[in-house]
Amino acid sequence: MTGQWSESHKNMMLFSGRAHPELGEAVAKELGIDLVPTTARDFANGEIFVRFEESVRGADCFVLQAHSGDLNKAIMEQLIMIDALKRGSAKRITAILPFYPYARQDKKHRGREPISARLVADLLTAAGADRIVSVDLHTDQIQGFFDGPVDHMHAMPILTDYIKEKYDLDNLVVVSPDAGRVKVAEKWAKTLGYAPLAFVHKTRSVDEANKVTANRVVGDVEGRNCVLLDDMIDTGGTIAGAVKVLKEAGAKDVIIACTHGVFSDPARERLSECGAEEVITTNTLPQSTEGWSNLTVLSIAPLLAKTIHEIFENGSVTTLFEGEA
Amino acid sequence: MTGQWSESHKNMMLFSGRAHPELGEAVAKELGIDLVPTTARDFANGEIFVRFEESVRGADCFVLQAHSGDLNKAIMEQLIMIDALKRGSAKRITAILPFYPYARQDKKHRGREPISARLVADLLTAAGADRIVSVDLHTDQIQGFFDGPVDHMHAMPILTDYIKEKYDLDNLVVVSPDAGRVKVAEKWAKTLGYAPLAFVHKTRSVDEANKVTANRVVGDVEGRNCVLLDDMIDTGGTIAGAVKVLKEAGAKDVIIACTHGVFSDPARERLSECGAEEVITTNTLPQSTEGWSNLTVLSIAPLLAKTIHEIFENGSVTTLFEGEA
Amino acid sequence: MTGQWSESHKNMMLFSGRAHPELGEAVAKELGIDLVPTTARDFANGEIFVRFEESVRGADCFVLQAHSGDLNKAIMEQLIMIDALKRGSAKRITAILPFYPYARQDKKHRGREPISARLVADLLTAAGADRIVSVDLHTDQIQGFFDGPVDHMHAMPILTDYIKEKYDLDNLVVVSPDAGRVKVAEKWAKTLGYAPLAFVHKTRSVDEANKVTANRVVGDVEGRNCVLLDDMIDTGGTIAGAVKVLKEAGAKDVIIACTHGVFSDPARERLSECGAEEVITTNTLPQSTEGWSNLTVLSIAPLLAKTIHEIFENGSVTTLFEGEA
Amino acid sequence: MTGQWSESHKNMMLFSGRAHPELGEAVAKELGIDLVPTTARDFANGEIFVRFEESVRGADCFVLQAHSGDLNKAIMEQLIMIDALKRGSAKRITAILPFYPYARQDKKHRGREPISARLVADLLTAAGADRIVSVDLHTDQIQGFFDGPVDHMHAMPILTDYIKEKYDLDNLVVVSPDAGRVKVAEKWAKTLGYAPLAFVHKTRSVDEANKVTANRVVGDVEGRNCVLLDDMIDTGGTIAGAVKVLKEAGAKDVIIACTHGVFSDPARERLSECGAEEVITTNTLPQSTEGWSNLTVLSIAPLLAKTIHEIFENGSVTTLFEGEA
Amino acid sequence: MTGQWSESHKNMMLFSGRAHPELGEAVAKELGIDLVPTTARDFANGEIFVRFEESVRGADCFVLQAHSGDLNKAIMEQLIMIDALKRGSAKRITAILPFYPYARQDKKHRGREPISARLVADLLTAAGADRIVSVDLHTDQIQGFFDGPVDHMHAMPILTDYIKEKYDLDNLVVVSPDAGRVKVAEKWAKTLGYAPLAFVHKTRSVDEANKVTANRVVGDVEGRNCVLLDDMIDTGGTIAGAVKVLKEAGAKDVIIACTHGVFSDPARERLSECGAEEVITTNTLPQSTEGWSNLTVLSIAPLLAKTIHEIFENGSVTTLFEGEA
Amino acid sequence: MTGQWSESHKNMMLFSGRAHPELGEAVAKELGIDLVPTTARDFANGEIFVRFEESVRGADCFVLQAHSGDLNKAIMEQLIMIDALKRGSAKRITAILPFYPYARQDKKHRGREPISARLVADLLTAAGADRIVSVDLHTDQIQGFFDGPVDHMHAMPILTDYIKEKYDLDNLVVVSPDAGRVKVAEKWAKTLGYAPLAFVHKTRSVDEANKVTANRVVGDVEGRNCVLLDDMIDTGGTIAGAVKVLKEAGAKDVIIACTHGVFSDPARERLSECGAEEVITTNTLPQSTEGWSNLTVLSIAPLLAKTIHEIFENGSVTTLFEGEA
Repeated sequence: MTGQWSESHKNMMLFSGRAHPELGEAVAKELGIDLVPTTARDFANGEIFVRFEESVRGADCFVLQAHSGDLNKAIMEQLIMIDALKRGSAKRITAILPFYPYARQDKKHRGREPISARLVADLLTAAGADRIVSVDLHTDQIQGFFDGPVDHMHAMPILTDYIKEKYDLDNLVVVSPDAGRVKVAEKWAKTLGYAPLAFVHKTRSVDEANKVTANRVVGDVEGRNCVLLDDMIDTGGTIAGAVKVLKEAGAKDVIIACTHGVFSDPARERLSECGAEEVITTNTLPQSTEGWSNLTVLSIAPLLAKTIHEIFENGSVTTLFEGEA
Repeated sequence: MTGQWSESHKNMMLFSGRAHPELGEAVAKELGIDLVPTTARDFANGEIFVRFEESVRGADCFVLQAHSGDLNKAIMEQLIMIDALKRGSAKRITAILPFYPYARQDKKHRGREPISARLVADLLTAAGADRIVSVDLHTDQIQGFFDGPVDHMHAMPILTDYIKEKYDLDNLVVVSPDAGRVKVAEKWAKTLGYAPLAFVHKTRSVDEANKVTANRVVGDVEGRNCVLLDDMIDTGGTIAGAVKVLKEAGAKDVIIACTHGVFSDPARERLSECGAEEVITTNTLPQSTEGWSNLTVLSIAPLLAKTIHEIFENGSVTTLFEGEA
Repeated sequence: MTGQWSESHKNMMLFSGRAHPELGEAVAKELGIDLVPTTARDFANGEIFVRFEESVRGADCFVLQAHSGDLNKAIMEQLIMIDALKRGSAKRITAILPFYPYARQDKKHRGREPISARLVADLLTAAGADRIVSVDLHTDQIQGFFDGPVDHMHAMPILTDYIKEKYDLDNLVVVSPDAGRVKVAEKWAKTLGYAPLAFVHKTRSVDEANKVTANRVVGDVEGRNCVLLDDMIDTGGTIAGAVKVLKEAGAKDVIIACTHGVFSDPARERLSECGAEEVITTNTLPQSTEGWSNLTVLSIAPLLAKTIHEIFENGSVTTLFEGEA
Repeated sequence: MTGQWSESHKNMMLFSGRAHPELGEAVAKELGIDLVPTTARDFANGEIFVRFEESVRGADCFVLQAHSGDLNKAIMEQLIMIDALKRGSAKRITAILPFYPYARQDKKHRGREPISARLVADLLTAAGADRIVSVDLHTDQIQGFFDGPVDHMHAMPILTDYIKEKYDLDNLVVVSPDAGRVKVAEKWAKTLGYAPLAFVHKTRSVDEANKVTANRVVGDVEGRNCVLLDDMIDTGGTIAGAVKVLKEAGAKDVIIACTHGVFSDPARERLSECGAEEVITTNTLPQSTEGWSNLTVLSIAPLLAKTIHEIFENGSVTTLFEGEA
Repeated sequence: MTGQWSESHKNMMLFSGRAHPELGEAVAKELGIDLVPTTARDFANGEIFVRFEESVRGADCFVLQAHSGDLNKAIMEQLIMIDALKRGSAKRITAILPFYPYARQDKKHRGREPISARLVADLLTAAGADRIVSVDLHTDQIQGFFDGPVDHMHAMPILTDYIKEKYDLDNLVVVSPDAGRVKVAEKWAKTLGYAPLAFVHKTRSVDEANKVTANRVVGDVEGRNCVLLDDMIDTGGTIAGAVKVLKEAGAKDVIIACTHGVFSDPARERLSECGAEEVITTNTLPQSTEGWSNLTVLSIAPLLAKTIHEIFENGSVTTLFEGEA
Repeated sequence: MTGQWSESHKNMMLFSGRAHPELGEAVAKELGIDLVPTTARDFANGEIFVRFEESVRGADCFVLQAHSGDLNKAIMEQLIMIDALKRGSAKRITAILPFYPYARQDKKHRGREPISARLVADLLTAAGADRIVSVDLHTDQIQGFFDGPVDHMHAMPILTDYIKEKYDLDNLVVVSPDAGRVKVAEKWAKTLGYAPLAFVHKTRSVDEANKVTANRVVGDVEGRNCVLLDDMIDTGGTIAGAVKVLKEAGAKDVIIACTHGVFSDPARERLSECGAEEVITTNTLPQSTEGWSNLTVLSIAPLLAKTIHEIFENGSVTTLFEGEA
């Protein structure tokens, strides 16, 4: 034979964007490795420059970026990192987006709108991503926006384990803040021992003739503790409103739980003061509990690290959720 | 100048697959044209042969296929028709799928599953479709599975207009047969004068200790007429079960409404005998009212014809729904 | 270094569609492995659901499907299986189509026809297939319809070895049933010791003035045994007619040989009664010899197994045919 | 409305490569237009430079190139012309290849070969061609190598009309020079009044024990005039050999007909001296009758011009062949 | 015929992103049309929402965005607008980027860097752009990063016309601020009457032994007026340094000219105080002369409007530059 | 588990086109392997046939071709080799083009021109190349024309090492033959100890009133030795002219250095007689020193071999240039 033979090895490398370096560090630590040293800086006019300080040739590369703060910049930075890996001969590139940006624009609500969540998938493909990892997509169908493997992780077990340990489940109702989340609430209810369901819903006012609509609870919450959940909380208006409606409907304690705590202004004020017992979230986005006493932040890093490990070793990611993916 | 100039004209042509020729004829009639004569036959081993009897060169082609009966054959036939148009120099090819097949598999429910609804979009692209028209997709996000224009039509106005005319709206509740349709039910409720909402839901049995779950109504239906809706009804098990639960919860009349009446066995028996007042559907799939006295079939043809007309004339499809698309 | 290193292994997995499970089992047995346990079922409306019961992450996956019975359903099932593998992070996906469907439509015979054989290749690509394995394509050019490796296997050695062993080659003529198969007949003739060639052909009737055309043998078959061959036999009309013409031209025994025994109705009757000594085929499609005494079925499974083995181990498939591929 | 409306016109432009400018001129003349003035020259190192002297923006562009002489240079020149049109905002680009290069390599004859005919289609796509026009492809399946419209023209009517006019059809046999062209010969035979068929074939020598193979005629040619046909004649070895075999088998006059007269050395000598009555070809490639008295060249330009006209005006190309394409 | 015929019209629509609305308005005014009314807003977490208030079906759409301020947001906004147009059935989408972002990263300066300028082209393609218009690309080769028509406009005539009118050309030297712009300086020199050239260059210090490099003028500038040019000026450090070097080398007046005045901090201070007579730029980016007395801003709007007009009417953009493009 | 596991190995194979077989042999020798035996021949009409004599299944394949002589044929041959590898199941295909053809056409110099350098990248992609290796691209931006890894090697160290060893650096000026190469000249100057720079430039004649332009040196070369460099020398006109201008400006010895010695006629005469001390080049193209006494050819083979080795072993190519790539 004329060729030259060599053993095949594989090499995992983890890269982190600048939007949430603490999460990158935490995941690396869980994996027992270091983040790949990366030069990343902004030119004066806002253009981003990236360069990796080690050869990435032939490596199985994972590019973690959080999508917070200057969201569009975070997207561009991740795309640029992926482009640099592609041109640097990485073997496989997995984009990790713990919080998938533009997920709310996952359809045309009306004519002449974009489907920005699909666009994000297309941009990742154009840059060179082979695979995507994300946590609690706004809708599961976003998996289908990418033409390749999407490992869709769930933070629910992390959140519900915490709730199960801290709260009494006997008197619990799971509440969806609107009609669109009832399906998810049903899953939570099942996990929390087939708890009853309720949801908040805009409807004809029964009391006032001239006021066409008002928020009302569908389902029975009187005297019960409520777990009010959502995939993401942005300014907190809907959720704070739901707490108010629940309280008016006679609910006892209300616990708010969400995977993605975006907490844009004035979420911190609203949620601190809305009367909820506790707000539970994860660090898919950077979080600070400073000055917000009833905020609890659970770490997503162990889940991401396990996922990366399974992907690299060709194990089963599905088993992380006992058959759900 | 060395070239040769000529006026530009455009030509609309409508083609129909063999799964539901009556719908194709009805749409053509609405448009005031004839279907393009097409030879389509099956070889003995099941392979489909298609040939168009007129030149399609430069034409704006609309390929209508219903996805019923032998569903996979209907898909292949439409793909083959599109391939023939592409190779025959059609200018633009719009695939019309009134009922989008495999729409329920729009995500991986568990690991190692396909996303068949995305696959269908990819197959249409591979064959040569430039655009898609569909009616009441199982989830709106399926629009984003196709990398191009998707005109997503809604049959709700056709169904609700009929209901408004025939039934008294005052005492009406809109009911979703499960947690996943509550959002759609909310839209219906708004259209039907902000009617109250309810949904059927699996939960812990309150009565029997050992029986873990049972279907229960969330929301108040006692003494009220219910509009029980769904995008599609297949074997009718869920819907018939929901009628039973509603009746047990004290509902008066139950009217079932769905866009896509798949009605696989034993749907006809189940729905005839479930106690519902009326079952209302459209002809996105072939329907027969023979031996099913309380089935009402409304025609989708005028909506499809108007959509084709707007697409061909570059009008606004959005305006067909007063701003919703 | 910041990365984490690991040894590289590779893993072969074999999947079978439901159209011909016996062939899948036979190939697996030859390879000394088990088929991957797969859930596959049909929804009431004909939609197919597929889920694999083991992780396919990083595996070298071979998806075997026969294209018989409900042919279009078999195609869709294989596409859906491929989509599920792609989304489940398979490393490489090889589609095995022992009988390539729609191979007869490999060109536009007239204007405004599809090229369905190319369409099938495009659909496999769209679903995610990286490679194709097939046996005795209707025309060799179909290899070029796929933008990637196509391993084109030949059943001729299996068929001719059987004939060589059973029949006396001295008095043999190789006969093509029409003008289009003469080239293939020439290969057979070479393999069978440079036997003479003949073919059946539509021509001007010499006997009857008004009858424009009739089938006639070109070449000398009188007093000789004939091997009448084809790549596939569908309804058997052409072949049975050729046997008749050969007999009229004075042929002794006629042996029919084909790779793909489609045998659509009324092939079984026709071929049983046409006067042929024996009909020889392979199991690229499901076969039954029940009630058809002179049908002989040779197994293609060892050839497929060897091919899969060579592909997995990066050996040479070409050498399986001593330089022909 | 905020936009600005304008009438739509369309403009046909014809471009010719440098390999056969006379054909370009002839086609332009048939169309009543001029070729677009084009600067094309070679750099000293062989690189080709092309620039069009008129704006091509929005035009329906036809790029004609013959593939003769320095064949690979002719291919590159056509690709470069197409690239320049694409970047110059042409509306639609149709590549015209009267003789499709590399058509003989339309499959892997053995392992580790290219499928160069598919590669040519891919290169045209990569450069920006939307459509292809060609004449008498070596195999019809090459149509399927291109993912778009291929207008496949046939020179047979031009050739057979000439033969019908000049020769007596009563005593004619149509002869294929090998087993692979029998199918095409059958079409010619039908056109020439269902003439009988014959073909030349390598077989076991009946006369000499030790000589394994020899060329032999299958079919009856004794005392008959033969039309010996092929799609292309390169060095003429096979054809001249066939003439010899036919003569030995008692044929009267032999007329050679082919669409593509490549006539590489020593074809001119061989065919002049092989004993054929006349050699008939077309000018899909540049031809010279100088010093070759029995060569007849028929013009393909009217056929190409009619095809271009139909494509531009969205007429039917199929009708040019009474239903065959 | 079965189809329906209609006249073809075409419709130009102009859309502007929010980064520089004044430029959009100015271009629209030049064209005598209005910008298409567009809803564009930011969600609290930074996600952009866009919706067009008029149907874009079938229109020839031009999407103008300036890339200044929050540059990455401007990119995302333009991509989202393009996606909305694609899904809204626009016929053709031309992205106009007067200042092409990330143009400086047009190659890997060292290993493991991205080629962000190519990435930007790929993102535009992924979103759905068919064509690009830009002004004075950092390097001409960026045209080749896009697989389609790029109309590359030049602001030089605007700038040099102004200089010719205001300044005496007799005593002028054209100066490149570094070695990479000498080629462009040569074009300017030619336009300004074959003026002499000079450039500033880092070299070994002749004066001080230990100081390895210093900036030095190559070419003769003593006693002459200098036009110091660049395609873009960001923080102004290089340019201000060049002015200093020129002054030290005895230059009289120095006029700075650039197409893209990025002017990131501290450019305004630097350039105001560097001793240059005048700074001339265009409004490809938003400009303010407030507090900067010697800044002159020339409008690029007429050039963009003429370009759009030629593209829409299929005229020649090349002629706008007398043969240069 | 149902699968079958196996160890993963990897295999490097090197293939050489016929344009410069000596270079292929030299690279193979450096790597300690043999070139893969390849059948390559030309058909009489110029079509190229290629077949590899060993299985390439799963191999890491490197396809080296020089682009000289019949340049377009060399391109087609490399494309055909790549196609054969793709269809033969190569794992990864790296195209090595020491001299990248059509690099000078890297932009539209005027309207309606191609960007042939991008076209070459697209053709390589269409054929199946995964990666490119090249040496001293005409402009660095050509890296961005390919959507994948491009390893851009530099011959400068080879050339400057030779110059440093042979010539005295103290009195050296680095000269660019035109304005476009000043940037590269600056890099050479830095490498040669921060030597001074100069360039030759067309400008207004100072001496003759009526003669508009003449070549002139910008920078000081009087009494100094000059290194006159270029990436490629074709017919040598520009370079020989530059030598003349330098000599007229008082330069002492002039040394010409270029990576790619195309040396089309009449380069050999021109450069032999232009008065240059020595002409230094590499063997990226075939070279002969016969009859050209002052031509020095340095070998590029060690650099290519090291690059291939690093790519195969996933080492860092960047480190070959101490951080420059």
